[in-house]
Amino acid sequence: MNQELAIIKIGGNVIENKTELTKFLALFAHLNGHKILVHGGGKLATQLASKLGVTSKMVGGRRITDTETLEVITMVYAGLTNKNIVALLQANNCNAIGLSGADGDVIQAHKRPVGEIDYGFAGDVDGVNTPMISKLLDAGLTPVFCAMTHDGNGQLLNTNADTIASELAIGMSEIYDTTLYYCFEKKGVLKDIKDENSVVKHIDSNTYKQLLVAGIIADGMLPKLENCFHALNKKVNKVCIGHPSMLDPENELFTTITL
Amino acid sequence: MNQELAIIKIGGNVIENKTELTKFLALFAHLNGHKILVHGGGKLATQLASKLGVTSKMVGGRRITDTETLEVITMVYAGLTNKNIVALLQANNCNAIGLSGADGDVIQAHKRPVGEIDYGFAGDVDGVNTPMISKLLDAGLTPVFCAMTHDGNGQLLNTNADTIASELAIGMSEIYDTTLYYCFEKKGVLKDIKDENSVVKHIDSNTYKQLLVAGIIADGMLPKLENCFHALNKKVNKVCIGHPSMLDPENELFTTITL
Repeated sequence: MNQELAIIKIGGNVIENKTELTKFLALFAHLNGHKILVHGGGKLATQLASKLGVTSKMVGGRRITDTETLEVITMVYAGLTNKNIVALLQANNCNAIGLSGADGDVIQAHKRPVGEIDYGFAGDVDGVNTPMISKLLDAGLTPVFCAMTHDGNGQLLNTNADTIASELAIGMSEIYDTTLYYCFEKKGVLKDIKDENSVVKHIDSNTYKQLLVAGIIADGMLPKLENCFHALNKKVNKVCIGHPSMLDPENELFTTITL
Repeated sequence: MNQELAIIKIGGNVIENKTELTKFLALFAHLNGHKILVHGGGKLATQLASKLGVTSKMVGGRRITDTETLEVITMVYAGLTNKNIVALLQANNCNAIGLSGADGDVIQAHKRPVGEIDYGFAGDVDGVNTPMISKLLDAGLTPVFCAMTHDGNGQLLNTNADTIASELAIGMSEIYDTTLYYCFEKKGVLKDIKDENSVVKHIDSNTYKQLLVAGIIADGMLPKLENCFHALNKKVNKVCIGHPSMLDPENELFTTITL
């Protein structure tokens, strides 16, 4: 039986709301056992870019990362957001260490090849340095990842935080029983989009197909669920989707996904 | 006999000059044995502050760190500068890991008490987490420190990079034979300020007094040298002052200071 590891991804809805962030970090800090936090960047980068007169180009929901945008992202994701989260976790007696993929060479990636769209300095993950991350965990540290990777040749790259979380979960599953938690603004996968409490508590490969046919999983949930099953197929133990409060042991209202 | 450790501090003159930085990082990466890099922030923070309309107040050469300035510093020091240095070191096969004092709780500080001047979020160092930094070194990592600390209660603090370097050297001297290198724009302590090559190659407690009396150590060099002897009195083995190229084994033109 391997040791357990929890990898939790939070996005802008938590990061940008001081009350929510404080609540979440207290819950996260009190989780027992090995854990890793992955955070997105949210609107702060867009706001800073706007103040600096850097135009953020978006195509299909993805930011086009030119040189100036990469600088803004490095400042906000790896600097402001990451270090504040680390300092707040320290205040919660959680010995956090902030990481980009370049730090300790923990996540290598390559610049996305230019196809119909040139995404600029966007990185597609090549691999996770499982032994190094494991050493950090064994040193009693809790890694806090921002959504940045590097190519090993000195170039930092912008990488989607959901992808970083799933790639980390896949990589770490080699030696840990890994559970991946995706926190978002809803309580989980909802049967009825208008009813916040109509959470589907458990999804597996069979029920997934039924939910697809019934049209319950559609739009934005579709890529999220595909991402979850990709991770499960690569030996991640379990994926949970829900509100950040799902880390509260007394909260049972979230979606658990297994194969 | 303890293991050797080199702690090297670079400032704006290296960071802001791409050619100089590339040369320096190649030299640094090729140093044998355990090593730590400490970098200042330089003008980039002032430039960003100015672009964002944040006025940097300076009193006696020290930046007054209000909330907005702290945000700028966190973005530039811990984000842009630190992560780019880490990525460039990785390209030089040096497994660097970027750290603020909050990461791994490696440097705790307290907010400087308000006296005649309110320095804002400026941190005076309380202690260095020698065991944790030692664990990182043993994991094969090369820590790269930016000039930031934390108070353990969630507050990041701005701390002078020279101070971080000397406090690290003092702390690490408990278990390592530590040499502290201060890189700056000159080749060392100069006998004749107008002659770049008139470097005093060796200073000890006795020659230091003579140089003081002769007025050779004055102005900006005075606090630097005081800082060096403070470190030496706290069991740091040796302090070297000179141009970043002093890391080149073939370069012998720099100042070495011992007790």
